[in-house]
Amino acid sequence: MSAKVNKDLLEERKKCDFNVEELTNYLDGGVRATEIRRKLETKVLSTKGLIDDVPEEYLSHKEKYENSVRKGVVLYKAMKESEDPNLTEQDKANAIYRSMINFAVFKDNSPFALHFVMFIPTLLGQADEEQKKYWVKRASNMEIIGTYAQTELGHGTFIRGLETTATYDPKTEEFVLHSPTLTAYKWWPGGLAHTSNYCVVMAQLYTQGKSCGIQPFLVQLRDEETHMPLPGIKLGEIGAKLGFTTVNNGFLGFEHHRIKRDRMLMKNAQVLKDGTFKKSPNSKLTYGTMVYVRVVIVNAMANQLARAVTIAVRYSAVRRQSELKPNAGEPQILDYVTQQHKLFIAIASCHAFSLTAKWLARMYQKVTSDLEKGNMDALPELHAAACCLKAVTTWDASAMAERCRTSCGGHGYMLSSNLPQIYGLVTAAVTYEGENTVLMLQTARSLVKAWEHASAGKALSPTMSYLTEKIDTKQKWDNSIDGIIKGFRQVALGKVATAVANIKKYVKRGLAPEDAWNMSSVQLVAASEAHCRALILSTYKSEAEGTTSSLSEPLKRALNQLVELYTVYWALEKVGDLLLYTSISEGDVRQLHNTYEELLGKIRPNAVGLVDGFDFSDQILNSTLGAYDGRVYERLMEEALKSPLNAEPVNQSFHKYLKPFMQGKL
Amino acid sequence: MSAKVNKDLLEERKKCDFNVEELTNYLDGGVRATEIRRKLETKVLSTKGLIDDVPEEYLSHKEKYENSVRKGVVLYKAMKESEDPNLTEQDKANAIYRSMINFAVFKDNSPFALHFVMFIPTLLGQADEEQKKYWVKRASNMEIIGTYAQTELGHGTFIRGLETTATYDPKTEEFVLHSPTLTAYKWWPGGLAHTSNYCVVMAQLYTQGKSCGIQPFLVQLRDEETHMPLPGIKLGEIGAKLGFTTVNNGFLGFEHHRIKRDRMLMKNAQVLKDGTFKKSPNSKLTYGTMVYVRVVIVNAMANQLARAVTIAVRYSAVRRQSELKPNAGEPQILDYVTQQHKLFIAIASCHAFSLTAKWLARMYQKVTSDLEKGNMDALPELHAAACCLKAVTTWDASAMAERCRTSCGGHGYMLSSNLPQIYGLVTAAVTYEGENTVLMLQTARSLVKAWEHASAGKALSPTMSYLTEKIDTKQKWDNSIDGIIKGFRQVALGKVATAVANIKKYVKRGLAPEDAWNMSSVQLVAASEAHCRALILSTYKSEAEGTTSSLSEPLKRALNQLVELYTVYWALEKVGDLLLYTSISEGDVRQLHNTYEELLGKIRPNAVGLVDGFDFSDQILNSTLGAYDGRVYERLMEEALKSPLNAEPVNQSFHKYLKPFMQGKL
Repeated sequence: MSAKVNKDLLEERKKCDFNVEELTNYLDGGVRATEIRRKLETKVLSTKGLIDDVPEEYLSHKEKYENSVRKGVVLYKAMKESEDPNLTEQDKANAIYRSMINFAVFKDNSPFALHFVMFIPTLLGQADEEQKKYWVKRASNMEIIGTYAQTELGHGTFIRGLETTATYDPKTEEFVLHSPTLTAYKWWPGGLAHTSNYCVVMAQLYTQGKSCGIQPFLVQLRDEETHMPLPGIKLGEIGAKLGFTTVNNGFLGFEHHRIKRDRMLMKNAQVLKDGTFKKSPNSKLTYGTMVYVRVVIVNAMANQLARAVTIAVRYSAVRRQSELKPNAGEPQILDYVTQQHKLFIAIASCHAFSLTAKWLARMYQKVTSDLEKGNMDALPELHAAACCLKAVTTWDASAMAERCRTSCGGHGYMLSSNLPQIYGLVTAAVTYEGENTVLMLQTARSLVKAWEHASAGKALSPTMSYLTEKIDTKQKWDNSIDGIIKGFRQVALGKVATAVANIKKYVKRGLAPEDAWNMSSVQLVAASEAHCRALILSTYKSEAEGTTSSLSEPLKRALNQLVELYTVYWALEKVGDLLLYTSISEGDVRQLHNTYEELLGKIRPNAVGLVDGFDFSDQILNSTLGAYDGRVYERLMEEALKSPLNAEPVNQSFHKYLKPFMQGKL
Repeated sequence: MSAKVNKDLLEERKKCDFNVEELTNYLDGGVRATEIRRKLETKVLSTKGLIDDVPEEYLSHKEKYENSVRKGVVLYKAMKESEDPNLTEQDKANAIYRSMINFAVFKDNSPFALHFVMFIPTLLGQADEEQKKYWVKRASNMEIIGTYAQTELGHGTFIRGLETTATYDPKTEEFVLHSPTLTAYKWWPGGLAHTSNYCVVMAQLYTQGKSCGIQPFLVQLRDEETHMPLPGIKLGEIGAKLGFTTVNNGFLGFEHHRIKRDRMLMKNAQVLKDGTFKKSPNSKLTYGTMVYVRVVIVNAMANQLARAVTIAVRYSAVRRQSELKPNAGEPQILDYVTQQHKLFIAIASCHAFSLTAKWLARMYQKVTSDLEKGNMDALPELHAAACCLKAVTTWDASAMAERCRTSCGGHGYMLSSNLPQIYGLVTAAVTYEGENTVLMLQTARSLVKAWEHASAGKALSPTMSYLTEKIDTKQKWDNSIDGIIKGFRQVALGKVATAVANIKKYVKRGLAPEDAWNMSSVQLVAASEAHCRALILSTYKSEAEGTTSSLSEPLKRALNQLVELYTVYWALEKVGDLLLYTSISEGDVRQLHNTYEELLGKIRPNAVGLVDGFDFSDQILNSTLGAYDGRVYERLMEEALKSPLNAEPVNQSFHKYLKPFMQGKL
């Protein structure tokens, strides 16, 4: 940390009434966890060659890729060398979960990311024991680099529509992989273009003339010595994107490409030598990974949003602008209540999402262990929760990260602020791993089913049990947190009921049930959102209660203010729904506004402390506006001067084009 | 237009029940206007050297700039050569206003843009006759290239805070320009970094020891022969940004740099030889340009959003995904009502914004001609309308352009879709030319003042006259368009009244009026938005009525459906406000949902026709997903293959880093 810190930030840090280190420990899961994470970060990020001298954005597309491969290799070795043999796997996982080392090195992730996040986990989850022994070892040692190819040019979230085929040929005991159309080309996998030499490919299996559904195949893409694509394999990159610039996303097509039988991952379904297909004993077994990825996404949203809001809050403490009172000088823009309104909800949302991710992870673990015992009862509930939580948190994080960016005015538009890149990462999550609207409608389907069960007097799973209640707009409204949570459940209940009535109306008018569902789908998404809001509100409150009891009073108070702010904010955002489905009155709404305005004022002195508590190092923030020392303007100028265009006072285009043009000679 | 058009698009075009050419003529302002625009576009865009072989996004930052200067010169000459001597200035202006030639050439605008948009207009508006004669001629002939420098590193919207000084020295009859601090550096002007050799600089004038406010100075930046920055002038580029990549935004600092007295633009204020300052006879005279720029912005939002929604609607007609009914095949995603919900409001918003811009332009012309007669009465109303319209339309266009992008799934994340670049352009408008929250609070100030006048029985200006009405939640609600507009005015009235009461409450508690205002500012912004929504709704309806009367019945019907959709959409979005401040009932809301769902169904068959009617050529759309022929997947692959990384099967980074790494030798 620099010796010279902006004086406004110094003042802010004095004002904070809780111990920031205690907050960091709370977020990490204990003093020791903070130590482990910091040690890892410091060690890795001090490795030579990881941080660019010339910011990546000035390189050509090709140079960016080459640089990212170089850094990927350095990072992997640095991580290996930093491994502390005294740590458990859980310790290491915790440190990585909260840390964002990757984003300090790559502004938007690495071409090796899918090797670790999808390739190895899929081998672990879907390869049989023999396959695992050989391939997981090779992959873990980085003897091979892999990726995971599912999405195609013509198909994304709708997996059944995938077109790539794997047809078993019992004569040679091989699968023939083929892309029958242009739209069958795999499209998007990270690292697929020029980095990976292996890949798990999801394809439609055909054997003995029958279609046997989507199955996973381990496919070698490139020669291990020369890296040349193997015959029958068409590979390349998909081109420039909004973000993920250095991730090397690729396409992949097959021309009757043959692989041996033992390259189908056979932990679950199997194809015997003669071509006999043996179904997976439990088709739900592969389902877990998908849910787990959604837990990771909810947590990633908390982390990325925390980076964005750290930058925006620190900048807002340094930036002074305009006048609140004549001759009182320019205030810090953090003193404008409209700015507090934009930023404090983002701080609260980080906590809400991170605690919700923890809750969802516990539910996932419970369901997974139940599944292994053959009990699938809780699976639909887990699925419904994971779907809407992934969708709502990615939408919220996108909107709030972008609000953080625009709250920094023009400077938030500079890449050196890192805010555009954070948005690029967050908004991608709206689409990947299940398109949000599709996911919301999946939760809606569970809600409608639960509502029908409730009408038939059946018991419901815990997160939906409130659907058995009656809508009672006469019940006295209560502006407390619990009152609001209850109100949100009433809203969800009301919206589900309204949507069901709407579907029935259209069926009565002669529409097919599917068309009636489609006609009502805007309302169904709204019902799903209402359910999810109630779920996040209640989870945030109960998880906060459960995790803060041993904290010091000042920190507990600060964290409770965030819970209250989050609840009141959403009550005001959704006031129309509350007015429709509860007994809330105009006076209650006025009171909520008052509470909200007062909460902003209470949180204001702690704002910088709250974001300092996320404990991102300057390298991880990677931002001219957000560094710990608040040297905003100096850094903006220092970064500008790194532009290669600034290396020469006159660019060659003047002599080539501008001068002859201005002199009328062109 | 390609011979082979996607068959789904062909079907869509058959289904459309109005004449698309008639819609285009309506948008252009007549058959002849369409002809003029198309002729200009075709002629200019067929010029050699304007369209890149290798897409810009693969070049380095420096190469991008050099390429944009080259293209800027070619474009200027092509525009000149395409000038038709038979056209009036108005004809030409109309063609440019609707056309987006610049965005076909530069994905995000040109380094010369500010020369035309700000430099020349400022000379025209603020130079005296003698200055004008000399400089406007040089600028129009492109003998010099200029830009406009106002914003500084430390100050944006708050102009009074600018730090650059211009101190008059009567001994030498010169102004001394100086940047006393780092934050005084000019920051952002397009073309300033390496392109322009002249600049209008806004600086704090000091003469005879007195501060005389912000005044404009014409400053030569670079030697006309060598292009070297002049002594005492520090110039460079500000670095990479989210968008505006090729615009060459720069910084500028002065070290006691001297310019002659005649370089102050003296149409309004003047400094005499001896240093005597002569105030502008009317300080409001320079105000017009600012409002005019906001008219242009509202129109630009309509144009950019029209590009985004054209791309998204055509893609949604081509893309097939998932299942609505078992075994019925994959539907076009445009058949999903949730997709219609995302897109049709964007089509309607384009019309709403474009008609509102026309209305605002008329108001601007009226006020300007009044001003010249010394009548300033209507200025505050114009100001209040322009502020909130700029803010609300840029916010809406940002949100909707981004929704268009995400509605295209993963492919919308590809730069080849052009949707990320359109968003980059649109979101910038949220910040530039007045930060939106600041502008909303300026309108709020007018509203509060008007409300106080109303309470005192004074008459109000037309756009605010509804504030004299009483809030009457007993008045019977009416779901018609007029009823909803009336409802929105009730909401605005109610919100202004509530915010005023809130301010009073805080004052009563002992807060200074400014602090009470600040505490209420979230509610004040909401009041300002409610006013603006009512204004857009009523303007859209009346302008549509006024401009569609001579159209054929089918087109009139299609356009009226958009007006109705727009109105009902916003009623449902703001249903909480309506419930608080009008007598709308739950049944009315249900009815609105029903109307909305039916409207989506009515618009569905015309959707492709409605976007075809915007009449963007493929070059102007610049999108793999949005081309007229719908060859989406073919174009995605063709564009991918243009990536320089795809020129070699094995990238050199394999030999340098990957291979030694995988073989454990690194």
